[in-house]
Amino acid sequence: MLSFEDSPIARDGKVLILAYDHGLEHGPVDFEDVPETMDPETVWDVATHDAVSSLAVQKGVAEAYYPSYEDDVNLLAKLNGTSNLWMGEPDSSVNWSVDYAAEVGADAIGFTMYGGSNNEIEMAEEFRKAQEAAREHDLPVVMWSYPRGQGLKNDKKPGTIAYAARQALELGADIAKVKYPGNPDSMSHAVNAAGPTKVVMSGGSKTSDREFLSTVKDAIDAGAAGLAVGRNVWQRENAAGFLDGLEAVIYEETTVDEALSRI
Amino acid sequence: MLSFEDSPIARDGKVLILAYDHGLEHGPVDFEDVPETMDPETVWDVATHDAVSSLAVQKGVAEAYYPSYEDDVNLLAKLNGTSNLWMGEPDSSVNWSVDYAAEVGADAIGFTMYGGSNNEIEMAEEFRKAQEAAREHDLPVVMWSYPRGQGLKNDKKPGTIAYAARQALELGADIAKVKYPGNPDSMSHAVNAAGPTKVVMSGGSKTSDREFLSTVKDAIDAGAAGLAVGRNVWQRENAAGFLDGLEAVIYEETTVDEALSRI
Amino acid sequence: MLSFEDSPIARDGKVLILAYDHGLEHGPVDFEDVPETMDPETVWDVATHDAVSSLAVQKGVAEAYYPSYEDDVNLLAKLNGTSNLWMGEPDSSVNWSVDYAAEVGADAIGFTMYGGSNNEIEMAEEFRKAQEAAREHDLPVVMWSYPRGQGLKNDKKPGTIAYAARQALELGADIAKVKYPGNPDSMSHAVNAAGPTKVVMSGGSKTSDREFLSTVKDAIDAGAAGLAVGRNVWQRENAAGFLDGLEAVIYEETTVDEALSRI
Amino acid sequence: MLSFEDSPIARDGKVLILAYDHGLEHGPVDFEDVPETMDPETVWDVATHDAVSSLAVQKGVAEAYYPSYEDDVNLLAKLNGTSNLWMGEPDSSVNWSVDYAAEVGADAIGFTMYGGSNNEIEMAEEFRKAQEAAREHDLPVVMWSYPRGQGLKNDKKPGTIAYAARQALELGADIAKVKYPGNPDSMSHAVNAAGPTKVVMSGGSKTSDREFLSTVKDAIDAGAAGLAVGRNVWQRENAAGFLDGLEAVIYEETTVDEALSRI
Amino acid sequence: MLSFEDSPIARDGKVLILAYDHGLEHGPVDFEDVPETMDPETVWDVATHDAVSSLAVQKGVAEAYYPSYEDDVNLLAKLNGTSNLWMGEPDSSVNWSVDYAAEVGADAIGFTMYGGSNNEIEMAEEFRKAQEAAREHDLPVVMWSYPRGQGLKNDKKPGTIAYAARQALELGADIAKVKYPGNPDSMSHAVNAAGPTKVVMSGGSKTSDREFLSTVKDAIDAGAAGLAVGRNVWQRENAAGFLDGLEAVIYEETTVDEALSRI
Repeated sequence: MLSFEDSPIARDGKVLILAYDHGLEHGPVDFEDVPETMDPETVWDVATHDAVSSLAVQKGVAEAYYPSYEDDVNLLAKLNGTSNLWMGEPDSSVNWSVDYAAEVGADAIGFTMYGGSNNEIEMAEEFRKAQEAAREHDLPVVMWSYPRGQGLKNDKKPGTIAYAARQALELGADIAKVKYPGNPDSMSHAVNAAGPTKVVMSGGSKTSDREFLSTVKDAIDAGAAGLAVGRNVWQRENAAGFLDGLEAVIYEETTVDEALSRI
Repeated sequence: MLSFEDSPIARDGKVLILAYDHGLEHGPVDFEDVPETMDPETVWDVATHDAVSSLAVQKGVAEAYYPSYEDDVNLLAKLNGTSNLWMGEPDSSVNWSVDYAAEVGADAIGFTMYGGSNNEIEMAEEFRKAQEAAREHDLPVVMWSYPRGQGLKNDKKPGTIAYAARQALELGADIAKVKYPGNPDSMSHAVNAAGPTKVVMSGGSKTSDREFLSTVKDAIDAGAAGLAVGRNVWQRENAAGFLDGLEAVIYEETTVDEALSRI
Repeated sequence: MLSFEDSPIARDGKVLILAYDHGLEHGPVDFEDVPETMDPETVWDVATHDAVSSLAVQKGVAEAYYPSYEDDVNLLAKLNGTSNLWMGEPDSSVNWSVDYAAEVGADAIGFTMYGGSNNEIEMAEEFRKAQEAAREHDLPVVMWSYPRGQGLKNDKKPGTIAYAARQALELGADIAKVKYPGNPDSMSHAVNAAGPTKVVMSGGSKTSDREFLSTVKDAIDAGAAGLAVGRNVWQRENAAGFLDGLEAVIYEETTVDEALSRI
Repeated sequence: MLSFEDSPIARDGKVLILAYDHGLEHGPVDFEDVPETMDPETVWDVATHDAVSSLAVQKGVAEAYYPSYEDDVNLLAKLNGTSNLWMGEPDSSVNWSVDYAAEVGADAIGFTMYGGSNNEIEMAEEFRKAQEAAREHDLPVVMWSYPRGQGLKNDKKPGTIAYAARQALELGADIAKVKYPGNPDSMSHAVNAAGPTKVVMSGGSKTSDREFLSTVKDAIDAGAAGLAVGRNVWQRENAAGFLDGLEAVIYEETTVDEALSRI
Repeated sequence: MLSFEDSPIARDGKVLILAYDHGLEHGPVDFEDVPETMDPETVWDVATHDAVSSLAVQKGVAEAYYPSYEDDVNLLAKLNGTSNLWMGEPDSSVNWSVDYAAEVGADAIGFTMYGGSNNEIEMAEEFRKAQEAAREHDLPVVMWSYPRGQGLKNDKKPGTIAYAARQALELGADIAKVKYPGNPDSMSHAVNAAGPTKVVMSGGSKTSDREFLSTVKDAIDAGAAGLAVGRNVWQRENAAGFLDGLEAVIYEETTVDEALSRI
């Protein structure tokens, strides 16, 4: 386990990961509401905001833009990912080797694990290779820990989210990205389950300013180390302002009202 | 991402890929209308035309002919491909290692991705290895991005074509070869989805001179960087003349009438 | 085969393995009765007791805590393991390479083998690689030998337990961890089947002090080299006291009454 | 592509491959009619005839006999092959690495490809590795190109044979061994489809002297570079005499009557 | 092919392999009749008899005992093997790498091939790797050639046994271990089919002294190079005496009566 506090993707022991791999996972349809977000440059610009401690992208988007943003954005290399076009048990292809991610300049590694998928065995072994290669490069590892598959009826059950957080610890992730389990107690349970592995809540689809900030505030109060967010930031007209609000809630631990006043 | 403009397979930022792997993908039946095209030499000669920025062939055809044409033709090494004789979800075998392609003299790498196939995971991981090996040799990578498989009812839907173009960007291709989605707006959408990855339209089966040039013109106007074409060139009696027409439309961006006058 | 007596995980030719990988295998639900055991530190502290000859954990828990406990705890690196969320024939992912386990400081290697699973072939080949890599690092190998799968109706039958013990010998494990087959004669049979491979009984779910110590006493008398135990230790309020009792039964071979008096 | 004419397995640009891997592919039953052919030495002796440009055998037969015949026989190392005892889509195991074949003294490499099998993808990728390794050793590559599988109703259709010949070219074989498609025109079509890859006809089961020589004559006249033959030679009492006849037809391009007079 | 006569596991061109991997293949149940045979030391002691040219064991049994017997027993490292607990087409896991077997001190390599299994392709490729690695270490290779699987109704048919013997030759085994096909003529046919590969008959379950010696005598007279035997030796009270009898029949080619008189 790396010293999280000293890693480039942490700020005062907190993290705000801006995720932008929707073009692969969901396709261009995710950019329809705010068409300019289809252009990666728009989101890289958003990622230069001080509140963003790293930007998570796939290899192609990193190769094309990171050289122009390396002084202003920390790169979280999302190693695996897949389209939503095919059928079958959840799985994800490893699209980027850790060695090449390091060469491109990655500050951290991201990896999706579908615990509970009938492909869990294979995914865990791919994670092993990625995690151990990341250790050689002194790169922290973030696990998108999303239980999903034939054996799971409800992947947002508090017990499942806590299991997901624990799985991240057991397998050697430094940070676990999990769905928000619906209430602060359940979030706190997940944070405890992860022990020394930091937990960040996953943003999900777009909601109102107050609703989103309140949920983030609840997660932080429950012990989360931060937030991984995509559409809830870059689908907003005033993304920079909203990041001011998130910065307040996450790093300064202000009230939601105070955070709303910063937007 | 490589600087596309500086690569040997671009001319003034545009490309015209002549594809000649039909003997593997469809078999000799594709040469029946113009029997002399079964002889690769015929097509290599066509490829010496200035309008052709690279010729895409499988390993065996490159080994046998490239040594005689290396001064006049840029070689696009098509890494994978398969016959149409077997049954099952779309897949393609990697018939050529990047190291050996580089040794033979390849100027660029081509790779088919059947996004949406239940073999997408495996194909994407093969693409990863090929793309990263190509980076070591400073070779640009062209993805034949063709969604196809059990989960896809209509693989020419505009949304699907745009997704295919985006997938090429996310996975690290320099150029995406996609089917023409039927109208300029949809093509423009695909071009936007690909961001900095250049998009070329795929030629398809043979049509009239005017019809084909008009479609190419529409694609170029919609932002495409060019064309990948096979039968529509080498099944024509006057292939060289037709390439004069394509040269006009693609590199000089003339009207279709002007281009037709050059044939 | 390594000289078991000289290995760091043996004490006077006996072993008491404290197992703590339940967070991965069963999830946080295993910690519900004694919530503080969800915090790995609690269990690492328990493991500093003299009776514990090694602590078996997954990679993530080792990375985070072993550096602080390396003077007081012997590390048994549990290489494979999986969640209970997915469906299908028993299998387990290799989450830790032996080389990296050695780098972290492992004193021994642990590996689950589901003999009888339709995945036995694959698991045995993974075991081969792990065992041979462990030999290069002079690390003893403990096999969790748990027959389980479509072909097995009753995995606690004495004949099955003896087969499991023998399989550990044949495949090259130094220690076989098997379920207690229900009576001393059957345990003795398993011990004989394992020949020079040491056999330790697996603890199972929590029972009363006397019942558990009596079973351990029976196993030791039947020739077992010790015990691998998890919940029966760290789910007890007085874990240290209970370890005093186990120490008496295992290392001093006292009566159960004498052992109970030490608690 | 290697210069076929300069390779050790060609004589005046022609080839006669004597095949003797029937013991693996069909079992000892193929030797029943002429029991002494079960002894490999009998066939190695036949292979010393000047008309035979190479002998195709599996690894074990090469290891045992080639050292005694290396001055008199060119070795075509048949890399893959399998028994006919199992069930399922056509496939073939790689029983010999190219490196070891070269070490044993191979003059060329042989590889079966079942195009059209649902295992085509895997077989083509094994062929890739073998072909590229053969290039490193400057060994010519012969593909036994035999379409076969669920998707093929008639594997001797002229179109299928031509596709098989073309597949050999596209994938990088120097020589394609195909079934005789029944008439000279179809053979000529296959030869044309293979372009610079030489085509040899496959012998099949035993027929009369005149019938076999006539077919070979037709194939040669249609452009075939020669013949691969097994049972039609070594199941004949007068194998040496029959080879005299084949030598006339193949290398001297005599009439069938002239060839028959040489027997 | 190695010079069999010069190999350490041959004596005057004959072999008697004592097999002791039943603990893995069948489980401890095979030791029930003579319980002391569960202790490997008992069988290693039997193996010191002059008649035994090698002892075939799995890795774990070799690691534990070979160091004490290396002056008196030749080690035949049985590379693969599996339990009989699982379900599906015949297969066997490779439990020992050749490099490590050589390091432990193996004098020869043993490998089970289930020709006819739907896993034959995979097993043959594993055999290839083992055989070629054995060549690098100058170790002779013994194939347990046992056709078995969905496509085989009767795996003791003479034609099947002869095919098994031939497969061993074709794939590069120095010795083929096959079931006795029921009569001397069929055994002779199998011996002929194997050509230069030596054939040894497999012992099977326990029978009377005279019956077993008679069968061995028939096999030797039919050209077999010896015997591989397990239970028929070590399940006998007077194993050493029975080995005296086998020594007479195999190495001195005495009559059965003479051999019986030596017991």
